[in-house]
Amino acid sequence: MTSLDELLDKLKFDDKGLVTAVAQDYKTGEILMLAHMNAESFRKTVETGQAVYWSRSRQKLWHKGEESGNVQNVKEILVDCDGDAVLLKIEQVGGAACHTGNRSCFYRKVEDGELAEVGTKIFDPEKVYKPNSGEPKPSEKEQ
Amino acid sequence: MTSLDELLDKLKFDDKGLVTAVAQDYKTGEILMLAHMNAESFRKTVETGQAVYWSRSRQKLWHKGEESGNVQNVKEILVDCDGDAVLLKIEQVGGAACHTGNRSCFYRKVEDGELAEVGTKIFDPEKVYKPNSGEPKPSEKEQ
Repeated sequence: MTSLDELLDKLKFDDKGLVTAVAQDYKTGEILMLAHMNAESFRKTVETGQAVYWSRSRQKLWHKGEESGNVQNVKEILVDCDGDAVLLKIEQVGGAACHTGNRSCFYRKVEDGELAEVGTKIFDPEKVYKPNSGEPKPSEKEQ
Repeated sequence: MTSLDELLDKLKFDDKGLVTAVAQDYKTGEILMLAHMNAESFRKTVETGQAVYWSRSRQKLWHKGEESGNVQNVKEILVDCDGDAVLLKIEQVGGAACHTGNRSCFYRKVEDGELAEVGTKIFDPEKVYKPNSGEPKPSEKEQ
């Protein structure tokens, strides 16, 4: 048993075999996105040093940025008290984590009972994602 | 229909009626914990200005800090692109969010294939949580 196997044993994957993963800019502390990982994606993340999630909508491994080039270089991985959530401190290549082109997926703020857009738009998704590619498009966003 | 109802309509609760909630220190940007919310807990959070989660282990509303006094004053609520995760920017009363007494639940870091404790211990949980109380104890941590 490798030490990575032992580490995986300490994570508490849910009934779908997943833990929640939060990606945070390692310098600014900004929360960029939230996704999920199964054991294999966690393993690949540790081994490659880039964030690899499990796409629940596409039911396959999702090497973040595989098409757009906006990969996430992982600087640090933290695990929460009960082992069902991990925090990735990352460097976001290209500056935007969200498929909408916003820097962060959390670009809408609750304000007077409404959702106000407060994000920083980095790119135009129409220009970054090609049709029929593997990367999620705005209309079929990873859930 | 109030504006809060309309807002709730924009959130995508999962098959268990939950969205994921990330609590972040509104000043330092530190991620303090990850939990879940159903519609009622989201409503109470907006209405009271303090974080109210849904405890999956106890299957009831969980007004964070109800016993320990370590409530979370909510400064800002952000919603992610697909509406299944919310980010609470909070002021953590008492300084610690984790039931272990650590400032953050993410107090363990992946290091050489091991989990190294890197957290800041703020309180002794034995002294804060009374036996048989409603607040989760280390042994029965909210999952």
